[in-house]
Amino acid sequence: MPGNSFGQLFRITTAGESHGPGNVVIIDGVPPGLELSEDDLLPDLARRRPGQSRITTQRREADAPRILSGVFEGRTTGTSIAILIESHDQRPRDYSAIKDAYRPGHADYSFDAKYGFRDYRGGGRSSARETNVRVAAGAVAKKLLAEAHGVRIVGYVDRVGDVVARVDDPAAVTLDQVEASIVRCPDPEAADRMIALIEKLRAERDSIGGAATIVASGVPAGWGEPVFDKLKADLAKALFSLPAVLGVEYGAGFGVVAARGSENNDAFISRDGRILTASNRHGGMLGGISTGMPIVLRCAVKPTSSLPREQPTVTRDGRPTTIVTKGRHDPCLVPRFVPMAEAMVAITLADHMLRQRAQVGSA
Amino acid sequence: MPGNSFGQLFRITTAGESHGPGNVVIIDGVPPGLELSEDDLLPDLARRRPGQSRITTQRREADAPRILSGVFEGRTTGTSIAILIESHDQRPRDYSAIKDAYRPGHADYSFDAKYGFRDYRGGGRSSARETNVRVAAGAVAKKLLAEAHGVRIVGYVDRVGDVVARVDDPAAVTLDQVEASIVRCPDPEAADRMIALIEKLRAERDSIGGAATIVASGVPAGWGEPVFDKLKADLAKALFSLPAVLGVEYGAGFGVVAARGSENNDAFISRDGRILTASNRHGGMLGGISTGMPIVLRCAVKPTSSLPREQPTVTRDGRPTTIVTKGRHDPCLVPRFVPMAEAMVAITLADHMLRQRAQVGSA
Amino acid sequence: MPGNSFGQLFRITTAGESHGPGNVVIIDGVPPGLELSEDDLLPDLARRRPGQSRITTQRREADAPRILSGVFEGRTTGTSIAILIESHDQRPRDYSAIKDAYRPGHADYSFDAKYGFRDYRGGGRSSARETNVRVAAGAVAKKLLAEAHGVRIVGYVDRVGDVVARVDDPAAVTLDQVEASIVRCPDPEAADRMIALIEKLRAERDSIGGAATIVASGVPAGWGEPVFDKLKADLAKALFSLPAVLGVEYGAGFGVVAARGSENNDAFISRDGRILTASNRHGGMLGGISTGMPIVLRCAVKPTSSLPREQPTVTRDGRPTTIVTKGRHDPCLVPRFVPMAEAMVAITLADHMLRQRAQVGSA
Amino acid sequence: MPGNSFGQLFRITTAGESHGPGNVVIIDGVPPGLELSEDDLLPDLARRRPGQSRITTQRREADAPRILSGVFEGRTTGTSIAILIESHDQRPRDYSAIKDAYRPGHADYSFDAKYGFRDYRGGGRSSARETNVRVAAGAVAKKLLAEAHGVRIVGYVDRVGDVVARVDDPAAVTLDQVEASIVRCPDPEAADRMIALIEKLRAERDSIGGAATIVASGVPAGWGEPVFDKLKADLAKALFSLPAVLGVEYGAGFGVVAARGSENNDAFISRDGRILTASNRHGGMLGGISTGMPIVLRCAVKPTSSLPREQPTVTRDGRPTTIVTKGRHDPCLVPRFVPMAEAMVAITLADHMLRQRAQVGSA
Repeated sequence: MPGNSFGQLFRITTAGESHGPGNVVIIDGVPPGLELSEDDLLPDLARRRPGQSRITTQRREADAPRILSGVFEGRTTGTSIAILIESHDQRPRDYSAIKDAYRPGHADYSFDAKYGFRDYRGGGRSSARETNVRVAAGAVAKKLLAEAHGVRIVGYVDRVGDVVARVDDPAAVTLDQVEASIVRCPDPEAADRMIALIEKLRAERDSIGGAATIVASGVPAGWGEPVFDKLKADLAKALFSLPAVLGVEYGAGFGVVAARGSENNDAFISRDGRILTASNRHGGMLGGISTGMPIVLRCAVKPTSSLPREQPTVTRDGRPTTIVTKGRHDPCLVPRFVPMAEAMVAITLADHMLRQRAQVGSA
Repeated sequence: MPGNSFGQLFRITTAGESHGPGNVVIIDGVPPGLELSEDDLLPDLARRRPGQSRITTQRREADAPRILSGVFEGRTTGTSIAILIESHDQRPRDYSAIKDAYRPGHADYSFDAKYGFRDYRGGGRSSARETNVRVAAGAVAKKLLAEAHGVRIVGYVDRVGDVVARVDDPAAVTLDQVEASIVRCPDPEAADRMIALIEKLRAERDSIGGAATIVASGVPAGWGEPVFDKLKADLAKALFSLPAVLGVEYGAGFGVVAARGSENNDAFISRDGRILTASNRHGGMLGGISTGMPIVLRCAVKPTSSLPREQPTVTRDGRPTTIVTKGRHDPCLVPRFVPMAEAMVAITLADHMLRQRAQVGSA
Repeated sequence: MPGNSFGQLFRITTAGESHGPGNVVIIDGVPPGLELSEDDLLPDLARRRPGQSRITTQRREADAPRILSGVFEGRTTGTSIAILIESHDQRPRDYSAIKDAYRPGHADYSFDAKYGFRDYRGGGRSSARETNVRVAAGAVAKKLLAEAHGVRIVGYVDRVGDVVARVDDPAAVTLDQVEASIVRCPDPEAADRMIALIEKLRAERDSIGGAATIVASGVPAGWGEPVFDKLKADLAKALFSLPAVLGVEYGAGFGVVAARGSENNDAFISRDGRILTASNRHGGMLGGISTGMPIVLRCAVKPTSSLPREQPTVTRDGRPTTIVTKGRHDPCLVPRFVPMAEAMVAITLADHMLRQRAQVGSA
Repeated sequence: MPGNSFGQLFRITTAGESHGPGNVVIIDGVPPGLELSEDDLLPDLARRRPGQSRITTQRREADAPRILSGVFEGRTTGTSIAILIESHDQRPRDYSAIKDAYRPGHADYSFDAKYGFRDYRGGGRSSARETNVRVAAGAVAKKLLAEAHGVRIVGYVDRVGDVVARVDDPAAVTLDQVEASIVRCPDPEAADRMIALIEKLRAERDSIGGAATIVASGVPAGWGEPVFDKLKADLAKALFSLPAVLGVEYGAGFGVVAARGSENNDAFISRDGRILTASNRHGGMLGGISTGMPIVLRCAVKPTSSLPREQPTVTRDGRPTTIVTKGRHDPCLVPRFVPMAEAMVAITLADHMLRQRAQVGSA
């Protein structure tokens, strides 16, 4: 299985580059009978789209998805679903500046080292453009999870630079609260400061890092596999497969390094006939298998590597040079990262839902 | 592919529980002609073994591996290699205390929720016992990587509780420096304080978290796949598949959330005809593909959940109770985590080495 | 891995139905640097196309492939290649006759039993329409195999009904000989009789079975895996995945049931420093691994199930009825089966070429 | 996924050679709660065992299986099941005759070509010895299928050389009828002649081919996937992965090449509220998906390649020589092939049962 597929049973396979004619995803394994149309894909695609607000890149992508197969009379048939998002902005540009020099922080050099040559137009396959079809597939996964188990996946920006959002209960954050600000932070006061910071950085021709929290509520206890395909392992792979992610943590996360066992263990309790934990430092999984508590995870997203300022680098043959990345780029990646991360979480959970159903027959 | 296999081309499949007759790994895809015997497996198994020092559990495991197949006249044949580690300590014990109550921080409840019942003897399949065969397989992967490319994988403890090691250059740490202390910290002064802290916690019937850094040097540029099987994604999956890991980060890691792009980008430079980066905040991978710089990653490991003190919990039918975990447990998991993490890194890299060779023909 | 993908390293994933907007294949794992354009796909697509001659269905499919990704400046980049074949003939038709009744010999009933409902337009996903993108992917595999190893894959019709072709040496048959007749039989005299037989059957509103032989020459010794992924096993899976195949045999095939070992064993000989076998009853593989002799296999293809005459059947709720399959169908499937089978053989061999390269480093 | 694993959800991975210390299978994906002990494995292992009758090899294998994991208190836990069959007959022998010369009909040459060297003791990994753990895994699959759906899998020898069994209804053959003769042919008169023929061949230091029919009854309609993982494709791969198989056919099989559609189509009928077909020329699958009719398939098995007589061949460096295969070999492979083929059919069906349950939720 080469690297353009993800998942075992709910499985996506993608193709497409930054400046090619279009991006495609084939989704395999979707149960039959799910109501589905292009309209189901539009909201999350709009949340991912460039040009959606003044703090994102002003580049425009049409992002109109077309379902080519696997749906008949408005319902999934159980056969593979292909979704095509064609690109309409393919005017020739001048790539001479990046053709022979390596943009710092980008995959230009590593692609050249791997393949011997590369599609240098806008990063080719390494561009975040490919995430549009992941978000489309994620919308299908979200719908399946919601209908089968009432699973709800909501992500938000919890930090930009030094601005930290105050969120008392990550599992209580709603999509409306998130979408109330263009920076996707549910703490309105922090959101304003994040936006101001991002605008300042843009003015300074610089960029800034940030972090996002993703919460999946309603996941039944029992999803995930004991050893290699622990749910935390597959979710981490899903999230680290997104561009710019440098760290992933669950529940108490890196905070556990200084914690004692006596304070870190979440006590099991019983409430209304259901077994829960009194706290959720474990982040919703124990032994890599869901406990029924909300799955709470957090991703560190690096500052945009493309900067509209001179940066030192080398050419393909090793000569020192400088490079200025033109084009329009997000000064902070996290607001648009949120729907991408939600999509990957949804796809991973849908896969494990089917895996549990296969082996145990419930789920 | 159910969850007891890892890797695409260098692929391991494991079986075995905490208190069963033995653990087995089948390693598939090893190139023919590699010299291999049980002796190659012993050093890392000794580093993983319980009872190796006064700060680990005093439980004894024999851990004598037996290669059952795939090696002929001292060399790998190219066919599947089975390694069996039998357990010799299978005396019946009294599990009544944990049979019907859920140990906090353990997988007891999530296994019950998943399968409907569980092997309650010492955690069954969720026990860290299963990592012995991962370490054996990791030794094979390390040998393959070293012979093919001179890749060297060294891990160390960089933090226990509030004690932080001072390491100027993670990529310069040697195995000897690590093994010089029983806590596997290459900073001798910090090592002493870590040991003292661990002994204090044990005396207090408590446990403590920590962090480990793993470095892979000598990995050529070009390993990893562009989209889902990014090297950082597969490594993260590998590491999160180990017990007790709550966070993984690469290079600057969570530090990027407050960084500007202008300071976070590592400049490309040329030295002795090789293209490098002047700094290594990216952690050795860009676009998920290795750059030739050392791969540097860090794992947060939670404090041991098993505590020799009363902890509140519930029974299988939801009644409140308390539980005291008897048996002998590590008060800090990180020292023995190091060889497990090195093994998983080695297995992941060996897999990507073969993947690169398959598609591009070099590697 | 759900059922819409094939191959481990050279891997195809497909989507699309008989009467949907289009068919898509994503090819993953193609080595970088292979020259490729749509023109490379056209010859085999023309050989598969309906309406190509008077003995095939007169239905028209445009079959114009569009490469959406994975090719830059005329060469493959190493990233996933998407090929789209849009359908332009989607006028609404009257499906009432087949909507509620099961066509004998078709997958109508088994799809209903599997999924609970089905896309009844022309068979949906069970239609042979989906093979157009397999043939496109097969053209890529053929090109890769030819350039890397000079592998040549040629198939032909060796039997239609009672008409048996006389072919002295299957491995000597050329594409030109095959394409010299519309029935794809290299024995001109048999070809004429086959064509006459097919036309007679069409006039009688009936159909007829047949058999095709496929030969792959130039495959180096050493491809295939020892146990489950024997080359003969993967090739058989590839061929049985095509519609209408009821039997597959290699070399002496079913003839071995009455053979003695002393006459069935092919003696090894040495010629020009190469080890060969004096005869090729083994069909080019021993122990499931290629021997360097031509791979020779044969497929039994059933007569077309769709017949323009009344056939007894039942409705979805079990009531007896009759059905007449309208539309335009091939009275004999084998001539158009040949390029489909060649494609599947090529895809399987390309996969095993990369597998051998991954593990052993040559190939 | 290298070639030592089979199946997607009910998945087996094996290791072990002819003359190594033992063979191992890890079975992954078995649902929890199935009653299982070594006793369940013994009957089929006895049917596969060498030395079971006067017409098989007189070589002895102990074949005592040991379940190492995945079973607790007599029931499967849902985690991976390892089964070890140790070899106790490992006395050193003289392999000088086969070390440097290629046995005709064996994998000696193809292994050398693949790996550069080989374990020459008894064929190493290419020996049929590895099928012992397949048969053990097949017994688990059979039990699962029987308990979940009442599926029954029975195979028998239908032909040896020119002796053809007369069997009116393959689906009516019982295990008792098969096991009534040492040749595993349910037609007593033909069985006697087959045995006589085999004894004659043995006396002549020769061997003879044959064919086996395998029937799976009780498989519900709806198993199998539409395109690449058609049930007929996965079953064929399973059967061709066994040693010595040169042909596989379903239902009417190669007989379809001369059939007309009007006679080949099986009419759908309704009986007792169930939809069936009036005949079963299709062999139980349409569009690659089970129809609920018995799955009927047939395998051609070549005559044993090992012959106790001189055969011409070449050495590793190409010099002509002769070889006499010593050791004790079956003069006809089909009687012991029957339980191996049943096992592979069972494993494939168990896999598709879980796949159907994963996607559609029933099965």
